[in-house]
Amino acid sequence: MTTSPSMLPKGFRAAGMAAGIKKNGNPDLALLLADHPAPAAAMFTRNQLNGAHIALCREHLRMGGGRVRAVLVNAGNANCATGARGLDDARRLCTSLARLIGCDTSHVLMMSTGVIGAHLPVARIENALPALLAECDTDGFERFAEAIRTTDTVRKIATHDDPQGRFRIVGAAKGSGMIHPDMATMFGFLLTDASIVEPPGCPLAQVVDASFHRLSVDGDTSPNDTVLLWGLGEATAPPDELRQALTAVGRELAMRIARDGEGATRLVTVQVREARSESEATQVARTIATSPLVKTAIYGRDPNWGRILSAAARAGVPFSVGAARVWIGDAVVYRNGVPDPSAEPAAHDHLANHAEVVIGVSLGAGSASVEAWTCDYSPAYVTINADYRS
Amino acid sequence: MTTSPSMLPKGFRAAGMAAGIKKNGNPDLALLLADHPAPAAAMFTRNQLNGAHIALCREHLRMGGGRVRAVLVNAGNANCATGARGLDDARRLCTSLARLIGCDTSHVLMMSTGVIGAHLPVARIENALPALLAECDTDGFERFAEAIRTTDTVRKIATHDDPQGRFRIVGAAKGSGMIHPDMATMFGFLLTDASIVEPPGCPLAQVVDASFHRLSVDGDTSPNDTVLLWGLGEATAPPDELRQALTAVGRELAMRIARDGEGATRLVTVQVREARSESEATQVARTIATSPLVKTAIYGRDPNWGRILSAAARAGVPFSVGAARVWIGDAVVYRNGVPDPSAEPAAHDHLANHAEVVIGVSLGAGSASVEAWTCDYSPAYVTINADYRS
Repeated sequence: MTTSPSMLPKGFRAAGMAAGIKKNGNPDLALLLADHPAPAAAMFTRNQLNGAHIALCREHLRMGGGRVRAVLVNAGNANCATGARGLDDARRLCTSLARLIGCDTSHVLMMSTGVIGAHLPVARIENALPALLAECDTDGFERFAEAIRTTDTVRKIATHDDPQGRFRIVGAAKGSGMIHPDMATMFGFLLTDASIVEPPGCPLAQVVDASFHRLSVDGDTSPNDTVLLWGLGEATAPPDELRQALTAVGRELAMRIARDGEGATRLVTVQVREARSESEATQVARTIATSPLVKTAIYGRDPNWGRILSAAARAGVPFSVGAARVWIGDAVVYRNGVPDPSAEPAAHDHLANHAEVVIGVSLGAGSASVEAWTCDYSPAYVTINADYRS
Repeated sequence: MTTSPSMLPKGFRAAGMAAGIKKNGNPDLALLLADHPAPAAAMFTRNQLNGAHIALCREHLRMGGGRVRAVLVNAGNANCATGARGLDDARRLCTSLARLIGCDTSHVLMMSTGVIGAHLPVARIENALPALLAECDTDGFERFAEAIRTTDTVRKIATHDDPQGRFRIVGAAKGSGMIHPDMATMFGFLLTDASIVEPPGCPLAQVVDASFHRLSVDGDTSPNDTVLLWGLGEATAPPDELRQALTAVGRELAMRIARDGEGATRLVTVQVREARSESEATQVARTIATSPLVKTAIYGRDPNWGRILSAAARAGVPFSVGAARVWIGDAVVYRNGVPDPSAEPAAHDHLANHAEVVIGVSLGAGSASVEAWTCDYSPAYVTINADYRS
């Protein structure tokens, strides 16, 4: 997989610009445009507190037969907890953009990310739409990925070219994890020239389960989280290969989010092996990945097998602690019910000397394996989140 | 309720001393002794990683018909992940103590708290037992509470005297929450001269559900958590009054643990009201109480209603966000689906000027209410946990 910023699949254009939503003048308005309405599928946060865009996207996807021509994204304001006016604001912007494009309003989606509880500067955004549309181009994906950032320190793009040249996927994401204060945080975009509606049907749920749903920064989910899959259907992709490629792009984006977690100094891959099922493995991996004790230990470069095992053992998944193994890097630090102190120096070196570290638990209960991604907890995480609105 | 360190109920004695288990020479060995074997009940952690004492306590309570003469507690070493030898060590110490007392081994319990994965210094503890027994006295409860500390900054005692003088409860606890690195952390002891076995039967589960189970520091449960209720049965207590009094003492101890949370600067009471049931209210309260975003906001004295509402809305409990209210201190900062910015200054003042703060959510869904207790997250929490073994 090439991961450098890259050209969009044929038929897509993108743009990003500064429209004055963010106080600091950074880019904050972004657009994705398809040459014709094409099938899209979205998954939204399960948080009951929802940004206005979530109701609107659901409505437009239903009314528009699941076809999308344009996606407008703003950063710096989540349009969440803004009542009926918030929904009206989003609706008005979709209508204005549809008029400019000359398409049906139901084929326009809108997404917002940023501070909760403030109204969108609707007139300012509306005034920026003609310029945004004018600069929309096939090489605009980096500007798009740039303009959807909030506190992200880097833009996040991943791409996949089918080795046989049949299809292409580009993805972008935003979020420093699910940890943003007052923020409605994570977005993922997966665009392909392949079809996402041919049998066996849309692979989005499977893709997200094996990618974004294995990402955690602190367990605080957001009211605006949205992942969009959009397929032009002009390229040929065998369904299994497309699903695998989308999953790979989704995982790459999830790892980029974890690596950019607030205050993070380490990208942490959590491996769980020998579980009875993938869902049990995922449950254990996510419990380890959200444990503050595990994450502070990694910040301290402490090969603290006891915290890893204790987190696994409270995940609600039955296994025999005596049959389990715990490793950090290549060093197996716990097995047969007792620690192996001789393995700790190698484990410490792994944590101390690599920006991307691996910790793992084998449950000795079955044959299912998963990986999940998180980051370490540093004092900067606390100060970033404590100082955010002060 | 008087909360000053206090005399034990008649029939109990206690002791605490330094036996050389902790490297720093602080008190680390403690004893509770009853004049005769008396009914006791214990609740243990649900973590599958268990300290050796948990299997041994279960066995002795079963063999001894639920009657206990003595409880030996050591701090500084959790005797956890120590394999078969760990269980043998605990068994040997119970047998030695039983011989010195002249009672059945099954009437002796032992509990351990401290570092995971290290073997107990059995000979050293065994040699200290005669002196510990010799200093055991009716005024020894403060020494007991002192010697069960690990990283606790204060000892934690709470007492209850029946206003009519019929019965008395004393309680002690240890733990800076459930957040101790490598630690198997929380102990609670509830001792009374009343009976805990008369109809309607032992109230421990109800008491713990309404006290210790509403305490959270970071959601990381420990392999050794244990709460013991022990009743001599020589005083008269109406069951309802006893249960209420035990719950009050348990709550006071839970709040003391939250106040002493690692790095904490604020004791936080989380109120949830108008829930459909107490269990749903508890689920929402615990989700708020474990949210790193809520806890870092409180450290930053930020009246961040969005984080409180978002945590409530992801707790898995259905309610209408538009019907909910959020308050901080006496200031209602969110209602009718939108924030009230005019309430924020009062909310900020509450967080800035009180060591004990209140945050709350009303779900507008029913009539059940609960309170839960936690503390704020400070950068010191991270550094304490990152540096612990380094």
